[in-house]
Amino acid sequence: MPHITLNTDEPGIRGLFRFRPETAAPLNGLVEALLCAPGTLTRGERELIAAYVSGLNECRYCYSSHAAYAAEQLPEGMALVEQVHDDIDGAPVSAKMRALLDVAGAVQRGGKEVSDDLVAAARAEGATDVEIHDTVLIAAAFCMFNRYVDGLATVLPDDPDFYTTRAKRIAAHGYLGVLRQETIHQ
Amino acid sequence: MPHITLNTDEPGIRGLFRFRPETAAPLNGLVEALLCAPGTLTRGERELIAAYVSGLNECRYCYSSHAAYAAEQLPEGMALVEQVHDDIDGAPVSAKMRALLDVAGAVQRGGKEVSDDLVAAARAEGATDVEIHDTVLIAAAFCMFNRYVDGLATVLPDDPDFYTTRAKRIAAHGYLGVLRQETIHQ
Repeated sequence: MPHITLNTDEPGIRGLFRFRPETAAPLNGLVEALLCAPGTLTRGERELIAAYVSGLNECRYCYSSHAAYAAEQLPEGMALVEQVHDDIDGAPVSAKMRALLDVAGAVQRGGKEVSDDLVAAARAEGATDVEIHDTVLIAAAFCMFNRYVDGLATVLPDDPDFYTTRAKRIAAHGYLGVLRQETIHQ
Repeated sequence: MPHITLNTDEPGIRGLFRFRPETAAPLNGLVEALLCAPGTLTRGERELIAAYVSGLNECRYCYSSHAAYAAEQLPEGMALVEQVHDDIDGAPVSAKMRALLDVAGAVQRGGKEVSDDLVAAARAEGATDVEIHDTVLIAAAFCMFNRYVDGLATVLPDDPDFYTTRAKRIAAHGYLGVLRQETIHQ
């Protein structure tokens, strides 16, 4: 049961967005810019970073959501997402993606954990300044979202298809698009 | 030296805002909604939560900034901010503020650390659902900002008056107001 009385029974962060639209707008603007806007990392790769960090923070709602969003947008699908979650060292990702995931994992532990060596390793595999910036901010943002969702003890969805259904909508319309649809239609 | 090549020598998060305006806009929208918009917690109290969490994360730039912003807007000034930072148990804050700072401290450790008891204690001192929500989200957001600023190894300001000068501008114009001024005038 959530720590506060929400005005809907929507699970996870959705109930919080409905409760506090003033903060829902910039929060969705942030993930739209980081995870959906045109960029040199694919949307699937960026969602994979979000899912990886949410897994490290053991946030079940955020992990399940962004694992589904990553799977929907990666050619390798859920198998790769689960490999990254279960065994990052053995997962068949590119050398650049592995180096960026290492940076993200460092951010999850703490900002000062991101060493010159980790950044140099990412750069050696071809990562650009914007890709390094965005990896750090995606990882940092999910250290926020995970704490927000679990810190208010939001509930998990009952519907087993919740995450995959939502993944198709996020892939098609983006975060701001889905937020707008839900604000208008519900 | 920052991990990435910024397009300005502005310290801390300011250089990151300049580097990536696409994410600067929603990030400033978030702190505007949380720390400046009308609310039942004063702006000084909300900045105190931000400073407290930044201190726990040992983020020197964010702590110094939000300590100055809190001091500017709290009747008790910097003395109280430093007492909360140095000895939370002995600091002369209200029982409600103490309970909310305890919730914020739990969020800093991890979302699942926010127990029913901590929330009940805040509620017993008169904290509302919105105040509990906002305390959790402020604390979570600074777990992001702290990681963002330190994860990219941004530099500290040379000017010893940097934080207090900025505090007056944030108090007068808010985060979005200052962002707009800087984007236009520099």
